[in-house]
Amino acid sequence: MKKRLCALALLGWFFITLVGAERPPNVVLIYIDNVGYGDLGCYGNPVIRTPNIDRLAREGVRCTDFYIVTSSCTPSRGALLTGRYPLRNGLPHQLGKEENWTGIGLPHSEKILPKFLKPKGYATGCFGKWNIGFAKGSRPTDRGFDEFLGCRSGNIDFYTHVYNGQEDMYRGTKPIDIEGYSTDLFADAAIDFMRRHRERPFFAYVPFNAAHVPNPKNKAPGVPTIWQAPAKYFEAYGYPADSTDPHEGYHAVMTALDDGIGRILRAIDRLGLQEDTIVIVASDNGASIRESLVLETGTNAPFRGGRTETYEGGIRTACIVRWPKQLKAGSVCREPVANIDLLPMILRAADVPLPRTIQLDGRDPTATLAGKDRSPHEHLFFEFRKWSGARRGRWKIVRSRPDREFELYDLAADWGETRNLSADKPAIAKRLVDAFEKWRGQFE
Amino acid sequence: MKKRLCALALLGWFFITLVGAERPPNVVLIYIDNVGYGDLGCYGNPVIRTPNIDRLAREGVRCTDFYIVTSSCTPSRGALLTGRYPLRNGLPHQLGKEENWTGIGLPHSEKILPKFLKPKGYATGCFGKWNIGFAKGSRPTDRGFDEFLGCRSGNIDFYTHVYNGQEDMYRGTKPIDIEGYSTDLFADAAIDFMRRHRERPFFAYVPFNAAHVPNPKNKAPGVPTIWQAPAKYFEAYGYPADSTDPHEGYHAVMTALDDGIGRILRAIDRLGLQEDTIVIVASDNGASIRESLVLETGTNAPFRGGRTETYEGGIRTACIVRWPKQLKAGSVCREPVANIDLLPMILRAADVPLPRTIQLDGRDPTATLAGKDRSPHEHLFFEFRKWSGARRGRWKIVRSRPDREFELYDLAADWGETRNLSADKPAIAKRLVDAFEKWRGQFE
Repeated sequence: MKKRLCALALLGWFFITLVGAERPPNVVLIYIDNVGYGDLGCYGNPVIRTPNIDRLAREGVRCTDFYIVTSSCTPSRGALLTGRYPLRNGLPHQLGKEENWTGIGLPHSEKILPKFLKPKGYATGCFGKWNIGFAKGSRPTDRGFDEFLGCRSGNIDFYTHVYNGQEDMYRGTKPIDIEGYSTDLFADAAIDFMRRHRERPFFAYVPFNAAHVPNPKNKAPGVPTIWQAPAKYFEAYGYPADSTDPHEGYHAVMTALDDGIGRILRAIDRLGLQEDTIVIVASDNGASIRESLVLETGTNAPFRGGRTETYEGGIRTACIVRWPKQLKAGSVCREPVANIDLLPMILRAADVPLPRTIQLDGRDPTATLAGKDRSPHEHLFFEFRKWSGARRGRWKIVRSRPDREFELYDLAADWGETRNLSADKPAIAKRLVDAFEKWRGQFE
Repeated sequence: MKKRLCALALLGWFFITLVGAERPPNVVLIYIDNVGYGDLGCYGNPVIRTPNIDRLAREGVRCTDFYIVTSSCTPSRGALLTGRYPLRNGLPHQLGKEENWTGIGLPHSEKILPKFLKPKGYATGCFGKWNIGFAKGSRPTDRGFDEFLGCRSGNIDFYTHVYNGQEDMYRGTKPIDIEGYSTDLFADAAIDFMRRHRERPFFAYVPFNAAHVPNPKNKAPGVPTIWQAPAKYFEAYGYPADSTDPHEGYHAVMTALDDGIGRILRAIDRLGLQEDTIVIVASDNGASIRESLVLETGTNAPFRGGRTETYEGGIRTACIVRWPKQLKAGSVCREPVANIDLLPMILRAADVPLPRTIQLDGRDPTATLAGKDRSPHEHLFFEFRKWSGARRGRWKIVRSRPDREFELYDLAADWGETRNLSADKPAIAKRLVDAFEKWRGQFE
């Protein structure tokens, strides 16, 4: 009997050692910029070609109810990397020009995802758009990334990498002179990073600057403001390679972006790491849809509104998670999940204990994504500038200014938010408004 | 040398015999009713659950530019089964009550798909909504189907199978008394047919009556007109099983329909016929969207308009083709293809020579669906009642009445048909209008 117990204990020890020694999964977190819910083939776009993202959807979970808790680039990134609402992490606003260059941005007291992963032996790299402060102490390599290649700001020219009159491309903390189309540069850097770190767990954060709308401020005088992409992506649609048509340009930019993601996926395949790598593609907020700007050609169909708003079009985005060891290929998750949930999911996957002294707002959504549980959130709350919103189950409240009444929508019947039910269902509206006020009150 | 030639000839003969003897593929052609482009998960619907149709999309080709050449049930079915425009096959109108019961409908001179397949040894069965005439000579079993179980008319009560005061369920040419939810009955009949004919090639045509909007004419006085589905499909969404909410009911009907399709797919798997069976799911026209009718809860998002119109919402529908031996799993076809093309595709697949004396309007789209060729059509033309339209490449003309001017839309930039470009691009508009007039003129 004693011998048997001994043998069992030994077996247990072996088991623990084996499990303990198991390499935690790699993570490739691709955050695309201003891509609308309706801009991807696998989310129903009839024209834009995104075969690689569509492939990811076939191999992973496609979320229909994935939320960005705020509807603009900077706070979206801050929330993603901290797992906390912007009002809690101290970065609820969009960084201005100077702030992008030298601002503190996300307070230094905040701990971000790569820093959590370092003790587990992860190699960490960031390749793309930073946009949460570049003061000393704020830079990617100050905050837990071993390496960085990208732009400090939120919105560069795709070829010259100019932002507000300055070339904005950095390696680590140093400006560099590098040529190329930004999507290609960031994909190449991520692939190179994965190759160099194939033997250990790695975390690659790839916040592409595409498909952010071009800005005339980032052009030399007289240079036209158009969507920029290599000729082959125009030609793939049968468009003239030198087309200045904004729709054609946007399609080309999107397919160039998809191609960059495809190259990353194929690199993972070549490295033999597909089974051991979590790949996430999500958009940082909805597409810009201000009609006055002809370059704003994305679509949040079938939702209402867009970037900076808290109608679904601003906050509900595409998100695909491929994780072969946990999630069923080709499945769809229709439960509310949010960008703040990705940090706890990744920490759990990496066997990093969730912090005890930091209040996370995100909740590990793995069981939800696997179809084994409901949403990890009773409520989700949304805020950007004057816009507010909250969702609970099928119900959503939204208002555009604090001095207005909340509107109430039934997202199961009316996902386009066309029929305000606040007068018909005052009890439901009140319950959601009360929950919102309680949530909001903690930050006063 | 002579011996060698002999051996080669013998080998050739063997080869030809083997190829000749190869069993042609089975065909399961599922035609769903009034389902909108935006009503399926794999076409971007955020709420409606269609996991089986989504599975088919992962395993086959999902078409983004599939057209029904007319936007109503009867002529859509006539065009599908003849491979000819309604104006050519003589059935351009929707059958009325009496016509559904005893009308000739599609002229007897027309030869339909199962009749072409019979000489190749196909077992042929039709299970569902007939809707193209039930006079003697017009019935499914008069026109090439070995068997039929379904309704003569276009729109029955899902449980009582009543249409305009008469129970409308037939086996062959005889009315039968059968209990059950129509989607289940039609799926069961198709599965039973496939089982019985597993040893020879078969053609199952499964025109489900779902998800056609319920009609008060098909109810006894005092019985409410609601969407009907088994309780489990309501409960799957967390809705009350006895819900009368039209949105909830529509979602339940759609998921019941998807489940019927899933049972057919699983039967094909169990019979070991997946590799040898072409499965097609397409909708007969866009969703009904008349706002006055609260039961019309489908969506053609992101397109404009709906059933009976020739805006994209009326004529552009979901279509998925799974054909493992010819088409790449998980691919997307963005070239214009139409319901009239399915007949020549199926004939070619079955090695049936295309008819010499019958003018087909459809063109075999296999190479297009395989991603190896452009659309088989320079132009596609659309007409229903007063509505007309035509598409060539990215350009589309549409008008709601013959005494109005055609509008011109650029479907690559503006798939929602919001900006009429006829004044800006008169040459393009004229070219399409001329092509339309020439096409239309042949039927005067």
